[in-house]
Amino acid sequence: MSISVAVSGASGYAGGEVLRLLATHPGVTIGAITAHSNAGARLGSVQPQLHTLGDRILEETSVENLAGHDVVFLALPHGASAEIAAQLPEGTLVIDAGADHRLVDAAAWEKFYGSPHAGTWPYGLPELPGQREKLRGSKRIAVPGCYPTSALLALTPGFAAGMLEPQDVVIVSASGTSGAGKAAKVNLLGSEVMGSMSPYGVGGGHRHTPEIEQGLGNAAGEPVTVSFTPTLAPMSRGILTTATARVRPGVGAEELRAAWQDIYENETFVHLLPEGQWPTTKSVQGSNHAVLQLAYDAHTGRVIVSAAIDNLTKGTAGGAVQSMNIALGLDESLGLAQLGVAP
Amino acid sequence: MSISVAVSGASGYAGGEVLRLLATHPGVTIGAITAHSNAGARLGSVQPQLHTLGDRILEETSVENLAGHDVVFLALPHGASAEIAAQLPEGTLVIDAGADHRLVDAAAWEKFYGSPHAGTWPYGLPELPGQREKLRGSKRIAVPGCYPTSALLALTPGFAAGMLEPQDVVIVSASGTSGAGKAAKVNLLGSEVMGSMSPYGVGGGHRHTPEIEQGLGNAAGEPVTVSFTPTLAPMSRGILTTATARVRPGVGAEELRAAWQDIYENETFVHLLPEGQWPTTKSVQGSNHAVLQLAYDAHTGRVIVSAAIDNLTKGTAGGAVQSMNIALGLDESLGLAQLGVAP
Amino acid sequence: MSISVAVSGASGYAGGEVLRLLATHPGVTIGAITAHSNAGARLGSVQPQLHTLGDRILEETSVENLAGHDVVFLALPHGASAEIAAQLPEGTLVIDAGADHRLVDAAAWEKFYGSPHAGTWPYGLPELPGQREKLRGSKRIAVPGCYPTSALLALTPGFAAGMLEPQDVVIVSASGTSGAGKAAKVNLLGSEVMGSMSPYGVGGGHRHTPEIEQGLGNAAGEPVTVSFTPTLAPMSRGILTTATARVRPGVGAEELRAAWQDIYENETFVHLLPEGQWPTTKSVQGSNHAVLQLAYDAHTGRVIVSAAIDNLTKGTAGGAVQSMNIALGLDESLGLAQLGVAP
Amino acid sequence: MSISVAVSGASGYAGGEVLRLLATHPGVTIGAITAHSNAGARLGSVQPQLHTLGDRILEETSVENLAGHDVVFLALPHGASAEIAAQLPEGTLVIDAGADHRLVDAAAWEKFYGSPHAGTWPYGLPELPGQREKLRGSKRIAVPGCYPTSALLALTPGFAAGMLEPQDVVIVSASGTSGAGKAAKVNLLGSEVMGSMSPYGVGGGHRHTPEIEQGLGNAAGEPVTVSFTPTLAPMSRGILTTATARVRPGVGAEELRAAWQDIYENETFVHLLPEGQWPTTKSVQGSNHAVLQLAYDAHTGRVIVSAAIDNLTKGTAGGAVQSMNIALGLDESLGLAQLGVAP
Repeated sequence: MSISVAVSGASGYAGGEVLRLLATHPGVTIGAITAHSNAGARLGSVQPQLHTLGDRILEETSVENLAGHDVVFLALPHGASAEIAAQLPEGTLVIDAGADHRLVDAAAWEKFYGSPHAGTWPYGLPELPGQREKLRGSKRIAVPGCYPTSALLALTPGFAAGMLEPQDVVIVSASGTSGAGKAAKVNLLGSEVMGSMSPYGVGGGHRHTPEIEQGLGNAAGEPVTVSFTPTLAPMSRGILTTATARVRPGVGAEELRAAWQDIYENETFVHLLPEGQWPTTKSVQGSNHAVLQLAYDAHTGRVIVSAAIDNLTKGTAGGAVQSMNIALGLDESLGLAQLGVAP
Repeated sequence: MSISVAVSGASGYAGGEVLRLLATHPGVTIGAITAHSNAGARLGSVQPQLHTLGDRILEETSVENLAGHDVVFLALPHGASAEIAAQLPEGTLVIDAGADHRLVDAAAWEKFYGSPHAGTWPYGLPELPGQREKLRGSKRIAVPGCYPTSALLALTPGFAAGMLEPQDVVIVSASGTSGAGKAAKVNLLGSEVMGSMSPYGVGGGHRHTPEIEQGLGNAAGEPVTVSFTPTLAPMSRGILTTATARVRPGVGAEELRAAWQDIYENETFVHLLPEGQWPTTKSVQGSNHAVLQLAYDAHTGRVIVSAAIDNLTKGTAGGAVQSMNIALGLDESLGLAQLGVAP
Repeated sequence: MSISVAVSGASGYAGGEVLRLLATHPGVTIGAITAHSNAGARLGSVQPQLHTLGDRILEETSVENLAGHDVVFLALPHGASAEIAAQLPEGTLVIDAGADHRLVDAAAWEKFYGSPHAGTWPYGLPELPGQREKLRGSKRIAVPGCYPTSALLALTPGFAAGMLEPQDVVIVSASGTSGAGKAAKVNLLGSEVMGSMSPYGVGGGHRHTPEIEQGLGNAAGEPVTVSFTPTLAPMSRGILTTATARVRPGVGAEELRAAWQDIYENETFVHLLPEGQWPTTKSVQGSNHAVLQLAYDAHTGRVIVSAAIDNLTKGTAGGAVQSMNIALGLDESLGLAQLGVAP
Repeated sequence: MSISVAVSGASGYAGGEVLRLLATHPGVTIGAITAHSNAGARLGSVQPQLHTLGDRILEETSVENLAGHDVVFLALPHGASAEIAAQLPEGTLVIDAGADHRLVDAAAWEKFYGSPHAGTWPYGLPELPGQREKLRGSKRIAVPGCYPTSALLALTPGFAAGMLEPQDVVIVSASGTSGAGKAAKVNLLGSEVMGSMSPYGVGGGHRHTPEIEQGLGNAAGEPVTVSFTPTLAPMSRGILTTATARVRPGVGAEELRAAWQDIYENETFVHLLPEGQWPTTKSVQGSNHAVLQLAYDAHTGRVIVSAAIDNLTKGTAGGAVQSMNIALGLDESLGLAQLGVAP
């Protein structure tokens, strides 16, 4: 019997990507597809790439339209998802692609988001140590942010192995513009972003900073302090994260490489590349894969890890569908593209 | 029992795309993967997007390595494919993604390609009238060129319906740079092409001109003369074709629209968009779909048809796999992505 | 004594480019810089590339702020410029970068723009035959549209020489997104336009069609009918126009080439490239140059002309400044970059 | 009396940009323009953007052709420039845009470049403390690397003021592809780089690392250790550098800001942006300006500085021309575009 799923926020980039994946998922039936300002429109008019769903009509995002499905994906602005989630039945699997339920620390939430904390749900990054088990059977899942997905995949092995010092972690990420959403803003116009790179949220201000510190701190078993700078790159999709941390005395290149290999060797979607090959975001375009490479710099005593993901797939919708598969006891890779669309 | 397929030219863009599609095709097993200068390398080192095939080793492109499979894809320079094809068993399904076997007119071949004509194979564009039937059971298939695919899909309905005049057909296409191949050339460097558009092969010199005229002439039942200008656009993938022809007296907008709708209404991969919606190449990125829109311009008495495809998918590898499916009697859409990767 | 200039619409792309050129013009002093919704802001906050003017404050666009200068540039939406222009002193040189005063035919204006016709001003494309003289001493100048600039430069020599037939002219242009302006619209987001091409205004509906027909008709001495299709390309700047027309009997490749050479051989800003070299938009990026190439296609009896300009420079602000220079009796190339910024 | 200049390596990106700037420099006359494999070609065929110089013929790069000019620009591969420079007259101003004469430490040179050290010339980054004076009257100038230009401008004020700790400096830069040169390589094809980001030279291996450490060490008065990771961004031009260092105890946001303002407040080409405004590479496209912003992150105790330059202008050719102007006692900004070409 097929599982019925509903997708809210379907006119945005995250919602569109969730639908792109679910449309080829052999185990689900797509029920309600909802939006806010675009309610009533043909899906094909706002997501023309979803050819097989083009004639579906967007319904209004409401508890009434979403309830009654086995699974509900929330691809909504923060705040909105918590409000709706609170009204959905306990037995419904609710997967929140937004930020509302990611942080454990209510004070950090309130500082960075300026609103009351809605609570904490199991975190949908199954490749973190012990995390896959927490997702099995869960009825509520918080999908990680796109930057945290890349940053946590990049550095978790080293912290979990106790090889990295918790201070002076520096992470610089470059993201495609779809990470900034589909709202019409002058600074996101093609004329502005093509041929240009720019930083934003510099100086610890980005909301993904506490989420990264939370995840790395969990792996390290002690607080980790992160300097995180996101930048906007002239491409639609993809995140390239450069993450670097000081290596503890006595740890060398081989031990580092082994730590990363150990954690990811059985993973379907996360890969340490062969030595000498570096990640490119295009190699994971449209796929749920993450590719990593690391180097130990003896001169500075630091490890540098480079990680590439598709911000909309592994960074959002792919992680969401992968988490759904685990929660429901399905094959973890159902509906998830294994191959990137390149060149 | 699974069908064994071999793919030559696997380090190039066309060969890589054939592999991307075949890797998710439920009915085939990928046998030999061959290349020329990259023979001996890990596939993952030259096609890093093909994660699940990354550890396969590229074999030398040779008759020995290709023979013995049920299906052989040739993604080779023109000339090279004819030479190999001539040595493959008659019972092998050979699908040539190159130009060697597309043209009927040997003189046209020799004029545009400067070498002896290798013969003519069934043309792998099943959406042309009567063409699907010619592919069923065929053991030799010539995959159309990427520009001709878009141009023929754009104008065939009007010519087949006798609504268009065979002179003064003008076609201008913009292609992503992958259409120019993976050979290292200064004019194809990212630094040169980003932020720039340029024409090439202007004045009837492009080799796809006789192929377009052949196809439109078949539809019209009389010779069609085409002015075709290809341009290079700053994107990796996609072709946007603008095709225009004079409409015969007495034919109006409604008749035109009906002609296109009639031909494509039952097609899985070719769509006339709802009125008011225009094609974008991104909406078909990575998918085998073609999207069209048309307008009748009473002022000039011309119809203008806009067509978007992914040059590597519907324009090359997707058309090849679709044709293979038909030839083998499989479901026509196996292994072919229905949804575009956008944004 | 320096000439005082005012620039309205200074927060938009056209206004910003006018300022970029005027800032290096040795004969002018920049007076009022005005905007509408951005009035009160530092210019540097909306046009960060204008380093030397960054601390100037945007004033409100009003007759009061603009009057009192020797020259006023109007880079405003159509309708708005006519309204302000009507209130500026007769002795002020008013240069309208918008559409209000380009068309002679009031009926065509009303059909395409849906408002009363504001009148016709001398047309600021001095390379058209006899046009430079009409601009000398003029106090009102209508800057051509960006597409018409490229199209008229491409085909005027052939029509002026009586070599081309006035029917079945087909023009397809690809423009960078800055041509669509700086208003925040979802379809112009970087995420939408990068990696994508799309047409718009197909079927004769684009407002630049009557302007192109007007200019070519002037050159031909008889009405010319044009099928014009604009497309949007994934780049910020640049227009590549492919223009084709039927060549009259008895005219061959040499006569055609000579006609283009004759008209442009003494022009500073318009160049017929050496045979074998094709225009690229990047080669004119940021410069006021237009580069052309042509080919005679004996097979179809058509000439194909390819023209590349920077839509914001020669296509808008450069043409405006060049026209100002002529009107004021200055050296025509003052303030106008001769070299493109490439790669 | 005009100064005669010769430019070698004129078919490459650096050489082309030197010519673009010199062509508008009022104080120089361009003499020999030389190349290697392109010798004999029209300059316009390889640098079509240099409209006013298009008919110049590229001469062979040789001592004979370069000697006899007042100034010689060397835009050659490392090794080649030292060889030629050694044979040029002592009285000729030789400006080496390559790496041969940048490093003081011969051992570092040999480690990173694998060849004998050619010596050290005055370093052409006049905005460094005390550096402008060293360039006046000099007959030999080493133009800084593009990454070091951005990195040294970003962090020098803090080190010069003794506010930053010399360990755990982390710098991540994103560069346009022109920084990788004009040689035809598959990994630099437009099809590969558009829509993709990738790192290279990770782990301290990039040759610009010792150059950055040398410059920051000079400012600090003690050795500085830098973890530097360059990445390739999908744009032709521009570098965005994110540089971060630990702030010494007792130093706060205000002191930091004041240190940067003090050093750059009288500079023509380097600007600390108003608070709240972040650098974009496009705002300096084609210009010699560098724009900076900084933030103090109390949470991590680090300062993060973001710097944007055009790698070909301020990062190479602009720095070269600026240094020439200083060496010759000319106005420092002659021939140097002050305004960026944006959007």
